[in-house]
Amino acid sequence: MTDNRVYLFDTTLRDGQQTRGVDFTPADKIAIARALDEIGIDYVEGGWPGANPTDDRFFSEPPALKRAKLVAFGMTRRPGRSAENDPGLAGVLGSKAGAACLVGKTWDFHVDVALEIDRDENVQMIRDSMKLAAKRGFEPMFDCEHFFDGYKANPDYALSCVKAAYESGARWVVLCDTNGGALPHEVSEIVAEVVKVVPGDHVGIHTHNDTENAVANTLAAVRAGARQVQGTINGLGERCGNANIVTLTAILGLKMGYETGVGDKGMKQLKKLSRMLDDRLNRAPNPHAAFVGDAAFAHKGGLHVSAVQKDPKTYEHIDPELVGNQRYILVSDQAGRSNILARFTEIGVEIDPKHPKIQRLVEDVKEKEFLGYSYDTAEASFELLARRTVENVPDYFSIERFRVMDERRFNARGQMVIESEATATVEVAGQRLHEVAVGNGPVNALDLAIRKALSTAYPSIDGVKLMDYKVRILPPPPNSDGTDAVTRVMIESAGPDGTMWRTVGVSANIIDASIMALSDSLTYCLLKSGTEAKVDA
Amino acid sequence: MTDNRVYLFDTTLRDGQQTRGVDFTPADKIAIARALDEIGIDYVEGGWPGANPTDDRFFSEPPALKRAKLVAFGMTRRPGRSAENDPGLAGVLGSKAGAACLVGKTWDFHVDVALEIDRDENVQMIRDSMKLAAKRGFEPMFDCEHFFDGYKANPDYALSCVKAAYESGARWVVLCDTNGGALPHEVSEIVAEVVKVVPGDHVGIHTHNDTENAVANTLAAVRAGARQVQGTINGLGERCGNANIVTLTAILGLKMGYETGVGDKGMKQLKKLSRMLDDRLNRAPNPHAAFVGDAAFAHKGGLHVSAVQKDPKTYEHIDPELVGNQRYILVSDQAGRSNILARFTEIGVEIDPKHPKIQRLVEDVKEKEFLGYSYDTAEASFELLARRTVENVPDYFSIERFRVMDERRFNARGQMVIESEATATVEVAGQRLHEVAVGNGPVNALDLAIRKALSTAYPSIDGVKLMDYKVRILPPPPNSDGTDAVTRVMIESAGPDGTMWRTVGVSANIIDASIMALSDSLTYCLLKSGTEAKVDA
Repeated sequence: MTDNRVYLFDTTLRDGQQTRGVDFTPADKIAIARALDEIGIDYVEGGWPGANPTDDRFFSEPPALKRAKLVAFGMTRRPGRSAENDPGLAGVLGSKAGAACLVGKTWDFHVDVALEIDRDENVQMIRDSMKLAAKRGFEPMFDCEHFFDGYKANPDYALSCVKAAYESGARWVVLCDTNGGALPHEVSEIVAEVVKVVPGDHVGIHTHNDTENAVANTLAAVRAGARQVQGTINGLGERCGNANIVTLTAILGLKMGYETGVGDKGMKQLKKLSRMLDDRLNRAPNPHAAFVGDAAFAHKGGLHVSAVQKDPKTYEHIDPELVGNQRYILVSDQAGRSNILARFTEIGVEIDPKHPKIQRLVEDVKEKEFLGYSYDTAEASFELLARRTVENVPDYFSIERFRVMDERRFNARGQMVIESEATATVEVAGQRLHEVAVGNGPVNALDLAIRKALSTAYPSIDGVKLMDYKVRILPPPPNSDGTDAVTRVMIESAGPDGTMWRTVGVSANIIDASIMALSDSLTYCLLKSGTEAKVDA
Repeated sequence: MTDNRVYLFDTTLRDGQQTRGVDFTPADKIAIARALDEIGIDYVEGGWPGANPTDDRFFSEPPALKRAKLVAFGMTRRPGRSAENDPGLAGVLGSKAGAACLVGKTWDFHVDVALEIDRDENVQMIRDSMKLAAKRGFEPMFDCEHFFDGYKANPDYALSCVKAAYESGARWVVLCDTNGGALPHEVSEIVAEVVKVVPGDHVGIHTHNDTENAVANTLAAVRAGARQVQGTINGLGERCGNANIVTLTAILGLKMGYETGVGDKGMKQLKKLSRMLDDRLNRAPNPHAAFVGDAAFAHKGGLHVSAVQKDPKTYEHIDPELVGNQRYILVSDQAGRSNILARFTEIGVEIDPKHPKIQRLVEDVKEKEFLGYSYDTAEASFELLARRTVENVPDYFSIERFRVMDERRFNARGQMVIESEATATVEVAGQRLHEVAVGNGPVNALDLAIRKALSTAYPSIDGVKLMDYKVRILPPPPNSDGTDAVTRVMIESAGPDGTMWRTVGVSANIIDASIMALSDSLTYCLLKSGTEAKVDA
């Protein structure tokens, strides 16, 4: 082990699971543990055996990990009984984990007020628990709850707890900022004192993001000598979350020159790891996430873009490919030629920069953005527009006419009800189909009627889900008389494989705008799946 | 000015506006600037006059601010022409702002490669621009693009640019980490060098969150001596966002003992400020946001909760009420009560805190917020709900039934047209009126039909304008089967005297939700104008 080696400890499956709304299934836990092992995380904390049936099941048949050590979480022994006879410890030390991370008190105030026991007894609880874990063949770790508050209140007592754990065999003493209130300069100063008592390569750090300093606090601890860092994927966690292990892995390895278990190949999977957690939790990924967000390397503005293309290091702090991400050029109303050309490369269309239609597309985009389209977000609508300019996009279907009726009335039982019913005439596969559907609102009803018409010719669209629907009234353009405000509808759709795409429609009429966005969404889905347009029944 | 005074500079309306998907209307800009002024932010950067029509309009009729200074952003003069003859500078210095923040280069590589000019000419551009801004009566600020990369590459050149700006009258020299790549320890070291050349109370810091260190980098700069901090509400900004001024305000004032323009009262409005931006952007607030997120002080688990109730400082790093937030515990009726009582004071209704109906209102609000209502923003809907609980609100009208038809068809001339037609049956002034109207969409048509029915009895509502209409699909509540997503409609209305009010409606059906919000809006207008309900024709 060199002084430069930092150990990564993931607690997504334990501390991350404490988050409101997070409820991993055993299958989720196994998949996440494997993904963490795959990229080279050193420790995977799987949960708290004895605390709930999911965790019991996970630890009774743990996944086979290649390199990572599986960690079981628990508490040091209770006051007034031996470690051997403690039922909580028995659960942890009876599990099939390789390491045991046991939490205990180091803040005198908590020992006095919460435990209401003698301070020496608390120290003895730590000693006994570490010794028993080692004796049972586990790598022992001591998790110091509220360490920084404890140190501020009574440094001698806090340090005596830490020292006791280390002397009793703890491989790691982990300093926790439990309520997330410590600031980086405090962490720096306090860790510097701790490493005088316990060698830095036995000191870990566990932070929370209550002041947006979880990452900075972790880095401060590492610079002061700590060599184990704890975090969760995407910073998942209670309140404001834990330190984000994705960000920490990238910074420590790519920007600070520390050695971790994550090599170049693992680093390139960081974005995938981040996405995988969102998918498991059925959450929309945060586009602004550091390193791995879709917008993390997004550039806007013609001048800026041409500078990036000259030399990316002018506007990028790392090469996005190192973490499996990519540069993303935003199309906006400042869009110049260079933006548009860069977007063609991104969507995989080879085009001669001097292609005569490029200028027309630049003007088209400008005009449409003036009308209220926002291609920055609606990348699928942009791709359709761009492809239609330079190549053929199949006409999969044509919505000829439709009618929607929303009615609030009394039903046969005398109850007030509201209902939306849509009829649509759609030309598809050489046929004119006329369908009707009822929905939760006019757009939902229309969506259902149109899909009904398309589903025979294109069964794949049955799997497309409407994920989000946003409406904004745009102010009338300058120099207008003020009566011609338009409506912009943005739709986010998802395919059965989890891919997401966004489309836009703009019209004076909200229904019309919705149909445009919807129609683009279905067309995009068919185009990307390589479906051929059917012209005959 | 004391050494302890830190100046807060908000750039939500300028740098925040660069974000994908963000396009503020002039009304948004005015409302945000006023809210920032209200809480005590020192500088409000409003945009870039000359860059786009929205910013031109904003700076030609800027909002009257009580304490904050309005800042116009721009660039230092171009190479090869005098500052007096520079069209870009003319736009900035012709605006009605009080300060001019001009960006320029300090990284030799950018001077050589991007500008392709002599390095001394770049320094002269900085000098000339600062001098002209001062001469024209603006408080001059120099924004050092890529300062930290520039310093790392060539410290002498970077410092000479900074020094030139200061010597030429810059009130502030702002060090920008433009690509967000700097780490806190680097910022510490570099700012410590800068304050040897320019006094710290003339040095500002502007950071981005590409490594999740925007807040930490700002704090590092302040600890090294910088005294102006730039950020955006909720960290809005390109890529991974800017430093979050909400978090910075809270940390600097509450945790580090610096003096800012934000007093106790302003601090208590931080959560409201954060929400206001989300509402303007039609975004769901981040429950995990530091200090102001709904989950930032959420506690779960019996033991934990009783420890918090024994002494909150065991698990909370600050008192949530200091930033206008609250503790969320399952048994938090007390918190709800005081919140509701505070809201009554806000809307000017005197009420006995022991009024028996208060408890019912607390429960009503909780239940409705669970269903998706957002009374934080829809203050007019809240006021109606509150007044209806404790006093009589007249029944001005009753919408009995309606029908809307949206149709896309070919008209008599063979053109494709889309039309929305609504009929509504409204009981008003003892009569049942049946009216029909055509509009730009279903809600517009219904709005017109309802007003047609009301206009004889209540001519004042003719002056009410629908300013904004926002729709959001809310995720289904936990423990549901996932199919019952609901739609929330927020409407912003304006009276003929320019007053604005916001109302909300929630339903599975978008039209139904719209009618609720619309009906609240018209009722609120009649109530506030002191109109008496007409019961007879």
